[in-house]
Amino acid sequence: MASIDPSRKLLTLINVVEVDPDKCDEVVKMFVDATAAVMSGLDGFVSSSIHRSLDGTRVINYAQWESEAALEAARNNPDTHIYYEQMDAYAKSYNPMLTTVIDSQLHK
Amino acid sequence: MASIDPSRKLLTLINVVEVDPDKCDEVVKMFVDATAAVMSGLDGFVSSSIHRSLDGTRVINYAQWESEAALEAARNNPDTHIYYEQMDAYAKSYNPMLTTVIDSQLHK
Repeated sequence: MASIDPSRKLLTLINVVEVDPDKCDEVVKMFVDATAAVMSGLDGFVSSSIHRSLDGTRVINYAQWESEAALEAARNNPDTHIYYEQMDAYAKSYNPMLTTVIDSQLHK
Repeated sequence: MASIDPSRKLLTLINVVEVDPDKCDEVVKMFVDATAAVMSGLDGFVSSSIHRSLDGTRVINYAQWESEAALEAARNNPDTHIYYEQMDAYAKSYNPMLTTVIDSQLHK
């Protein structure tokens, strides 16, 4: 199971994809299928978790990579290009943010 | 440790806060302190993980709650109001998105 652990110093990519609500389920399926078919086998890939906003206007990919170099290599891998082309075709906008986890707290 | 598990059917709140890069560390500290002091003790709170974008323009809170009702109760709890006021004061914009985890995959 994917876990959020500040001590691991992973790169966390949070990509907020704006979609037409009537296309939301298709975009979710596209992300899930692309992760299973291509992304999850790439070097440096750690996890990808697909979120759907309750109002259907956003699909959010919360993905963990070992490093920026690994993510960059994935982007340059021809096997992933169909995935980025599909995102371009479906998304009204998208905003991939490269982040680091600073802190994580559970219920106390 | 916080984990991402589609089977738990939690509410995941992803709040993307746009900040001045020179205020980014203060906003991170504000979130971390507010979580420790108030949020983490509230009914229905599961976890909160604070992310900082590498370019310093975004602080992202990835928070898990048992339900929308629990989150709504937290917002209406006077103990949390200082936290929302600080966010208003610091943020150039913020966009809290209520989501469900549909799928999560690890490296295979």
